Amino acid sequence: MTVLKSEIRRGAYADSIILMQLQSELKRLPGVLDAGVVMATPTNLDLLRASDLLPSAVADQAGGDDLVVVVRAETAAAAEEALEQVDALMQRKGAVATGDFRPHSLAAAIKLRPDANWTLISAPGRWAAQIAREALELGRHLFIYSDNVEIEEEIALKRDAAEKGLLVMGPDCGTALINGIGFGFANRVRRGPVGLVCAAGTGLQAIASRVHELGAGISQAIGTGGRDLSADVGGRTARQGLDLLARDPGTQVLVLASKPPEKKVAAQLLAAALEIEKPVVVSFSGWSAPAPQIGNLYFARGLTEAADLAVELAGREQDQRPLVRQRPALTGLVRGLFAGGTLALEAVQGLSPFLAPLYSNLTAPGVAKVPGTTPSRGHTILDLGADELTVGRLHPMLDPQLRLQRLRQEMADPEVSLVLLDVVLGRGTHSDPASELAPAIAECLQRDDLEVVVVLVGTEEDPQNLDSTQEQLVTAGATVYRTVSAAIDHIVPRAIPAVSPLACPVTLEIFEDPVVAINIGLEGFYTDLLDQQVEAVQVDWRPPAGGNEKLVSILERMKS
Amino acid sequence: MTVLKSEIRRGAYADSIILMQLQSELKRLPGVLDAGVVMATPTNLDLLRASDLLPSAVADQAGGDDLVVVVRAETAAAAEEALEQVDALMQRKGAVATGDFRPHSLAAAIKLRPDANWTLISAPGRWAAQIAREALELGRHLFIYSDNVEIEEEIALKRDAAEKGLLVMGPDCGTALINGIGFGFANRVRRGPVGLVCAAGTGLQAIASRVHELGAGISQAIGTGGRDLSADVGGRTARQGLDLLARDPGTQVLVLASKPPEKKVAAQLLAAALEIEKPVVVSFSGWSAPAPQIGNLYFARGLTEAADLAVELAGREQDQRPLVRQRPALTGLVRGLFAGGTLALEAVQGLSPFLAPLYSNLTAPGVAKVPGTTPSRGHTILDLGADELTVGRLHPMLDPQLRLQRLRQEMADPEVSLVLLDVVLGRGTHSDPASELAPAIAECLQRDDLEVVVVLVGTEEDPQNLDSTQEQLVTAGATVYRTVSAAIDHIVPRAIPAVSPLACPVTLEIFEDPVVAINIGLEGFYTDLLDQQVEAVQVDWRPPAGGNEKLVSILERMKS
Repeated sequence: MTVLKSEIRRGAYADSIILMQLQSELKRLPGVLDAGVVMATPTNLDLLRASDLLPSAVADQAGGDDLVVVVRAETAAAAEEALEQVDALMQRKGAVATGDFRPHSLAAAIKLRPDANWTLISAPGRWAAQIAREALELGRHLFIYSDNVEIEEEIALKRDAAEKGLLVMGPDCGTALINGIGFGFANRVRRGPVGLVCAAGTGLQAIASRVHELGAGISQAIGTGGRDLSADVGGRTARQGLDLLARDPGTQVLVLASKPPEKKVAAQLLAAALEIEKPVVVSFSGWSAPAPQIGNLYFARGLTEAADLAVELAGREQDQRPLVRQRPALTGLVRGLFAGGTLALEAVQGLSPFLAPLYSNLTAPGVAKVPGTTPSRGHTILDLGADELTVGRLHPMLDPQLRLQRLRQEMADPEVSLVLLDVVLGRGTHSDPASELAPAIAECLQRDDLEVVVVLVGTEEDPQNLDSTQEQLVTAGATVYRTVSAAIDHIVPRAIPAVSPLACPVTLEIFEDPVVAINIGLEGFYTDLLDQQVEAVQVDWRPPAGGNEKLVSILERMKS
Repeated sequence: MTVLKSEIRRGAYADSIILMQLQSELKRLPGVLDAGVVMATPTNLDLLRASDLLPSAVADQAGGDDLVVVVRAETAAAAEEALEQVDALMQRKGAVATGDFRPHSLAAAIKLRPDANWTLISAPGRWAAQIAREALELGRHLFIYSDNVEIEEEIALKRDAAEKGLLVMGPDCGTALINGIGFGFANRVRRGPVGLVCAAGTGLQAIASRVHELGAGISQAIGTGGRDLSADVGGRTARQGLDLLARDPGTQVLVLASKPPEKKVAAQLLAAALEIEKPVVVSFSGWSAPAPQIGNLYFARGLTEAADLAVELAGREQDQRPLVRQRPALTGLVRGLFAGGTLALEAVQGLSPFLAPLYSNLTAPGVAKVPGTTPSRGHTILDLGADELTVGRLHPMLDPQLRLQRLRQEMADPEVSLVLLDVVLGRGTHSDPASELAPAIAECLQRDDLEVVVVLVGTEEDPQNLDSTQEQLVTAGATVYRTVSAAIDHIVPRAIPAVSPLACPVTLEIFEDPVVAINIGLEGFYTDLLDQQVEAVQVDWRPPAGGNEKLVSILERMKS
């Protein structure tokens, strides 16, 4: 037989980390078999019941603002002894008021520390948004660890913050490093030239730890929260983060890491990143990289490579880094007319994250499929060797007629700014493709707002003569590259739409002023701040009306 | 007014490339406005009609085995003059019999050159399979340029070839390089240490040209045809290609390039590639790389990087290349229990191309989604910090209870061979996670067929002490890595199922014997062989029964 003993402490709110630790310590006491220490919310009572730790007295009498301690022990004496130790254990954990004065509200805390520039919120999700709103009204940057915040609340908070030039990291932001100070779960890493903008907590930790392991360091690491790069939230925090790190003199190389963002959000963030005069390593997990490098963007295959690349780039001399190209150079549309299907596919993949709408007769994610026979619209990349176009005629690598005809169509479209072609040399193919294409290219370029880029594949041993082919194409006015990746690198930074600047950018004071923080929620985050010699205030926060939601809603109605 | 004149040549078959060239040359004659030169199949007559090049006499009288020449000119005299030049132009193109003897069938050609080891087929698709079957029966390797071959025919041909130890490149194979000899569309590249297996024609050309440009060369380049890596065809040619290049002493580094293969086919090919004692660069366009490197596999972001990597690897000293690991080491299942969501996702992405079935509570392509609360099955990677698992409890980076409980479950499953865990250090997290995990790991390892791998994220400055954490884990028996990519590299080569060897591998004679070829179809492919000093025979091939399908089917019924 085992004995179950319990205690209800009315209105005795304590945060869940303390309760969890208390529960672990109770379990280690002699004769104790199991223990539960929770705020008596309906969910938590269900959990106690599932563990066979819910005496009927607790079930009947305890409410959401009561602390419940339950112990199952071998004997009644062991159970009682365990319950008697609760106060001592809580005292040791700092869970009950110690000597230092703790304000009971954010407003009171700010009166105490008017210089506080940060508010850290790890109160339960259903209260977090309300606290965050208050902090924004009081003009403080935010780190919101809490999860289970409604997405509408996140959108409203971030819109509000953007208008005030304030930063909202989170909700559900596990970690950040500001001026060398760790918020939440944060590794101790040296400071250095690499700045991070990460949607995921352990992603940020993994990159920061790896950068440190490689001997480099982190300038600033901004967490956005996992939903920031969704279509609804629109990457507001990520955009602010990129903007800040672009201006931060301590950041030489940026890393932007996330799960695959929503397509439009990705396009906007990449467009913003392409305007930064620093290398930006991009790691979108599970995302097919458009190329190893485009302009100042480097696409990593995972977190480890993202860190490795960032450290390698930070070590390079300034003049070995890629130049940021003048933009905007191409205001119109891109049309690709390919003889080689694989080259066309590579062009589609290189362009699709950046240009929209993109059409093709090839199948690829994020690309609208069109038949190769209809007139182009939007940005279009066509494989002219596709089956539907070669019925009854030779492959375009042999017969240039179809491509020449199509080229004239694109040329006649005043919205087109750039035509992308391939010329594939070798035995078996057309004996002099440049002689057919060059006059048509020259004709194209009579329009001075049109540009022709050619990907020329072949060797100097090929029967068509690589050099004279290239010369004919260049003389006709084409820009010639030897690989699709080089052509993409030429086109993308100039073809993407200009990014409108942030209406109200966060000022660099965020990195210049020492961190002074108000912490609401997990006690551990407060003590970690003190450990880091941060001036901090812990708010002795309790849920309004003791967590009684009916009462809260009555109070709120009375206020308004 | 313009004049339309035409001529029907009954039973005068010529291949389409000749006709296309003839048509171009007719158009260039003085006074000629447009011209059409086609075999009078219904499709081709439709095309003539669309170009306003179909006189009613032709429409009424010409059939599929007739050659039709149509000219639209400014005057009747110009039209007639053009028609009179047809014979002279065809003569110049070698389209009609020249002095040398040309056999009329494959069998006759092989009697003429019994040493012919290759047959190149570029006859129209609907005849290609029949010719290919005959060539396989006669024991010849095949290069099939023709497209529009039924997929059932491709499957049957490749199954047949595999049983005979013969190679079938194509159908729809644009290019190949065997012993330095180009088949089809082929760039002239120097020979060297890089061997290619490519599904796409221009993909192969782009990689080969780039390798040449970088100063290296191609040992052999095997084209598979675009459908080879589909589920139906199952990558038979690609598998043979990998097997051949693995044994070829002239190949030091392999490149495997394709559009994204069907998942099972990719898994089989990657498993086969992992057994090769040479580096293999993999470039599946539009595919998210599982990691930069796994075992001897290197994952490239596009064709250019594939070539660059291959050349770089070929230049490395043998002893700097990765070791091929002893396999199979893990015969059972892999179970991952992660506290960090991003680390879990990276593990899912690293494992998903290789291990099936793979389950996870994370969303990722090719992974079966399961709730984190149900018992594991198959290979499973769980994010224990997922929302559904943290309701009413702390994050597993703070509270190890859930993971310890789950670890015991996995341990009790006799099918499990390897458990993958993460330990994330830093402020705010558990103060000594190793002290909780190490005893459980040691308990796991009492089963000597079980292995525990830990990804340890943190720095030596972290409060938990990286070194002592690592030491506790290693002492308990875990293998500890600092990144997910390193753990994946440790697991994958040992966890994937062994690949059954090919029943009847193609012997290396294919690369040792000089190419002697029989060409059926495009005249240009024949003259290119002669240019390359290849002993070759051109078959003066005509469609059976002059291309009359009704007659063909009667003849075939009579034969059987």
